Amino acid sequence: MTLSEIYQKGAELLESKNLGFNLKGVETEFVLRNNEEVFKRYKFRQRAINSVEATTETRLLDVELQVPIIMSSITAPIPQIQQDGLLKVARALKEVGSMMSLGTPVPSNLKDLVEVGVPLIQTVKPFTDRSRVMQMISQAEAAGVSWVGVEVDAGQGTKIMDRPMVRDCTPMSVDELKEIKQRVTRPLVLKGILSPWDAERALEVGADVIVVSNHGAHTIDYLPHPLEVMDEIVRVIAGQIPIIVDGGFRRGTDVLKGLTFGAQAVGVGRPILYGLAADGEEGVKTVIKEMAEELKRAMTMTGVKSPASADKGIIL
Amino acid sequence: MTLSEIYQKGAELLESKNLGFNLKGVETEFVLRNNEEVFKRYKFRQRAINSVEATTETRLLDVELQVPIIMSSITAPIPQIQQDGLLKVARALKEVGSMMSLGTPVPSNLKDLVEVGVPLIQTVKPFTDRSRVMQMISQAEAAGVSWVGVEVDAGQGTKIMDRPMVRDCTPMSVDELKEIKQRVTRPLVLKGILSPWDAERALEVGADVIVVSNHGAHTIDYLPHPLEVMDEIVRVIAGQIPIIVDGGFRRGTDVLKGLTFGAQAVGVGRPILYGLAADGEEGVKTVIKEMAEELKRAMTMTGVKSPASADKGIIL
Amino acid sequence: MTLSEIYQKGAELLESKNLGFNLKGVETEFVLRNNEEVFKRYKFRQRAINSVEATTETRLLDVELQVPIIMSSITAPIPQIQQDGLLKVARALKEVGSMMSLGTPVPSNLKDLVEVGVPLIQTVKPFTDRSRVMQMISQAEAAGVSWVGVEVDAGQGTKIMDRPMVRDCTPMSVDELKEIKQRVTRPLVLKGILSPWDAERALEVGADVIVVSNHGAHTIDYLPHPLEVMDEIVRVIAGQIPIIVDGGFRRGTDVLKGLTFGAQAVGVGRPILYGLAADGEEGVKTVIKEMAEELKRAMTMTGVKSPASADKGIIL
Amino acid sequence: MTLSEIYQKGAELLESKNLGFNLKGVETEFVLRNNEEVFKRYKFRQRAINSVEATTETRLLDVELQVPIIMSSITAPIPQIQQDGLLKVARALKEVGSMMSLGTPVPSNLKDLVEVGVPLIQTVKPFTDRSRVMQMISQAEAAGVSWVGVEVDAGQGTKIMDRPMVRDCTPMSVDELKEIKQRVTRPLVLKGILSPWDAERALEVGADVIVVSNHGAHTIDYLPHPLEVMDEIVRVIAGQIPIIVDGGFRRGTDVLKGLTFGAQAVGVGRPILYGLAADGEEGVKTVIKEMAEELKRAMTMTGVKSPASADKGIIL
Repeated sequence: MTLSEIYQKGAELLESKNLGFNLKGVETEFVLRNNEEVFKRYKFRQRAINSVEATTETRLLDVELQVPIIMSSITAPIPQIQQDGLLKVARALKEVGSMMSLGTPVPSNLKDLVEVGVPLIQTVKPFTDRSRVMQMISQAEAAGVSWVGVEVDAGQGTKIMDRPMVRDCTPMSVDELKEIKQRVTRPLVLKGILSPWDAERALEVGADVIVVSNHGAHTIDYLPHPLEVMDEIVRVIAGQIPIIVDGGFRRGTDVLKGLTFGAQAVGVGRPILYGLAADGEEGVKTVIKEMAEELKRAMTMTGVKSPASADKGIIL
Repeated sequence: MTLSEIYQKGAELLESKNLGFNLKGVETEFVLRNNEEVFKRYKFRQRAINSVEATTETRLLDVELQVPIIMSSITAPIPQIQQDGLLKVARALKEVGSMMSLGTPVPSNLKDLVEVGVPLIQTVKPFTDRSRVMQMISQAEAAGVSWVGVEVDAGQGTKIMDRPMVRDCTPMSVDELKEIKQRVTRPLVLKGILSPWDAERALEVGADVIVVSNHGAHTIDYLPHPLEVMDEIVRVIAGQIPIIVDGGFRRGTDVLKGLTFGAQAVGVGRPILYGLAADGEEGVKTVIKEMAEELKRAMTMTGVKSPASADKGIIL
Repeated sequence: MTLSEIYQKGAELLESKNLGFNLKGVETEFVLRNNEEVFKRYKFRQRAINSVEATTETRLLDVELQVPIIMSSITAPIPQIQQDGLLKVARALKEVGSMMSLGTPVPSNLKDLVEVGVPLIQTVKPFTDRSRVMQMISQAEAAGVSWVGVEVDAGQGTKIMDRPMVRDCTPMSVDELKEIKQRVTRPLVLKGILSPWDAERALEVGADVIVVSNHGAHTIDYLPHPLEVMDEIVRVIAGQIPIIVDGGFRRGTDVLKGLTFGAQAVGVGRPILYGLAADGEEGVKTVIKEMAEELKRAMTMTGVKSPASADKGIIL
Repeated sequence: MTLSEIYQKGAELLESKNLGFNLKGVETEFVLRNNEEVFKRYKFRQRAINSVEATTETRLLDVELQVPIIMSSITAPIPQIQQDGLLKVARALKEVGSMMSLGTPVPSNLKDLVEVGVPLIQTVKPFTDRSRVMQMISQAEAAGVSWVGVEVDAGQGTKIMDRPMVRDCTPMSVDELKEIKQRVTRPLVLKGILSPWDAERALEVGADVIVVSNHGAHTIDYLPHPLEVMDEIVRVIAGQIPIIVDGGFRRGTDVLKGLTFGAQAVGVGRPILYGLAADGEEGVKTVIKEMAEELKRAMTMTGVKSPASADKGIIL
């Protein structure tokens, strides 16, 4: 199956299993539509002559990746899509040299996923009951994940269309996040940074990685797309820590745009769900491999030798 | 019912009762479409870290509101939608801590509405027969409304599509408005300010409140949306009197945009009609409560603590 | 019938009589679509307070008009729409205080039209056989028209979609136009000015009036709308002669936009055809009267007292 | 048949012969849609007065053309559209005074095409097996083509939607291209220049002609349209060698836009396929003749006397 076929078949299958609601966006779904539209604003300046075959390999902190494309935090719908869905996703991502990211609830089989050997991130929502937050992080660390994180943008929980999904969340303060940072033994990711203010606070907290994200259109309506705010966030971060970006990335060319804007890697959520629904473990592998192949073609023809060397000079 | 369901069901019910015409716009309906489109231009800069739970409570002159969302002046279609429609709306708005605004004709049961205890505004059109204008205002004051007002933008009456609705109106002069101001005993609202020129004249008249509005697309075609002219009006008003804004506000995030542009409160018209049509008194309550809930979520996640502290810094 | 109803019914009737082709545009029909879109770019700054009832009366050279809306040059399809179509149009325009404009072929009953008493313009295409041009102009003058003119923009004839309509035309030189100017006894109109270059040449020729026009999308594809080039043309003309503008004007608010951009009057073509098709003489009268009524409402609410006093200050 | 009819009938016929896939674009088809949209951004400033009949004749290096419209490199689908398709295209282009361009594979009947007498360009892809590249060029020179060329933008082969078409290509270096330049006896075309960087390298190579092109949307997604990058490429080339442009040109007015942006000629691909499919040799002739006729009309009415004298002064 090609990428387009997987996306189409995956969407149909999720719909037929009554899981399509998970793909929708908060309230008016503006964020979801905007996540699609933004990519159409940017085109590539070609460098056809003197270019050489690009590599998609890169390094995120202590993690070696074959591709600068990782999974965005999702847990809930995956076991409903296919039996052993999380294990299948883990195996697929391991095989293609990617990274897996899990959200809440923390999967009960987290240790099994760790054993697959894929580098794992476990992120946690800012539940109003803060003891629950720290408990989940400790549980993930004990299971052996590579990184842990807090979804700071879920300070009012999550919501799809008019239906609140996760409740009982409260925004975190810098002090609370600092305390978490002091207690964790693995790199700390802050997910859901979407303004220079929050980027500054992430540095103040001592975060090891940030994810620039609008939470896949599942928190607040009328949030911008990450690419619309990357420039000012990149200026604040100034290369001190790696930046991951997610939000509507579907094609290798989208990934290249994310890299040129200053991200070190790109997260994908719905594509993983489509791949799993359409063709199980194989489908997830195909999604990442096809996106990587598209990325490599586009990198080569724009003269970008590696993910780390992409910059906005190739964007028109 | 959720907000989307109320809006959809309300629109269907109004259509089935042959009241759908009231929802249409003047001549080409440009204003109506533009009222929808404008909100899509503005996105929010998120402040996820260090933010605290927002309050939607505010004060407009002498009126305490639980929510910065009030009713825009409408009378005519309401009794046709449900029996005792005006009373139901009044009770609903009272319960959610909002404010009611009535247009012409002045309802015959105005005193009953006052007795419900909801703060009331009665606005009057600039009928060419000026004695009728003053008589209506006096009648409203006698009934005990909180504020009275003149719909200055109805100087050529109202019109829906190609059909004139209210005729026999003539623009008011500053002198005529000053005379009204001298005679009223309650705060005077000037509704339908849509340019800095008229804002200056409103101050000259001594207006206590202005409503920046294009009259819900029921006067002249090709009027801008209030948000397109707010900046220059806010500069003229310079905090001397409160500003209410209306025009196509449907969601809590729309309200937050109105507040950041410098309004102290936002008016909603059609949403009240949808709520009443879809679910009576309960429907109106749900509309205001759901919008307020959305507003509170968005305020919290953008670091806006109260309606009065919203500013354009959070708009992208 | 309202304006919308006339436009819709007229279009349907023309279609059913196989006359719909006349309404289409040259080649890709870009010009036709753009003629519609341009009006949506401009909105009005309202002046609701202190405004007074506007008048639509105006004067174009020696012609007194009740409305600043005149007919654009059309002849061919009118007799096919209704028997005595031209006479009916003439009578309607006379009654509403407008002006009639005829294109080629010069109608055989031109004298009858003159006798109706409506001020008449006869414009002629730049046929390669120049003697034919002068002959047509002399014939029109002899019949008693008010003004004569040359459609300078038909230098390559006319074309609708892929079908050439009028052939055998060649662009006119300044010298040729000067010679015509010397020989005519009535004011000379140059129709189809669409750039400052041609505006300069029109002054050089000694034209008495220009019509800024893209010929209703019937000459060359990808011509701009007149409003897109009015500013630079108005700068060249600098008030020395009157400017008429046409191209997609359908509503009174469109007319007001034309006036604010610096035109003294606005031409309408297809609306006349729709009116005639939908309701004969009465239909044409209704079109002009309804547009004038809309214009008057919009003028009054923007503080424009008369067509001559409109300026771009009211455009947003 | 008119141009519109040929385009429509041609598209239908290609679809019915299962050849429609060749017309689609790479991955998301953004490039294909953008190739259509770009032309709508540019309008013409008319010069109706003092203009004279334009000529479409021009010269490209040593080639005299009746029209500044040539064929873009295509080979593969043509023999499948009609028997002797390539011969028919060659004869048609010869008759209308145009130029033929062939891509890979090099047609087996190349000598027969040369004998038709149409000026011929043979371009070759940068196959990883470089000996194959030089062999193809030598074969074309031996057959007697006018010019030879390299499709430098096919450095990652070609791809339609999700299906790779031509594989085994690698970007060429300046040194490799210089070596080819030294060995060829005919003018060398570099096709697929789309940035000032590659334009500089083309000059360094000593190319005799460049084709600014996004390869008809068949290489990399999100490439810009040539008109979006022409200004900066024209600045680099600075008149030293001729520039051909292709990408979505369908109408004579599109061609005029290409010329005003600084191209000496415009290439068309899909229009040739449509013409051949719809009406064989006659269809191809009609396509070029109709485009040329439209071009001449538009040139005349914008005061452009010849292809070489077009400049951006007429673009609005």
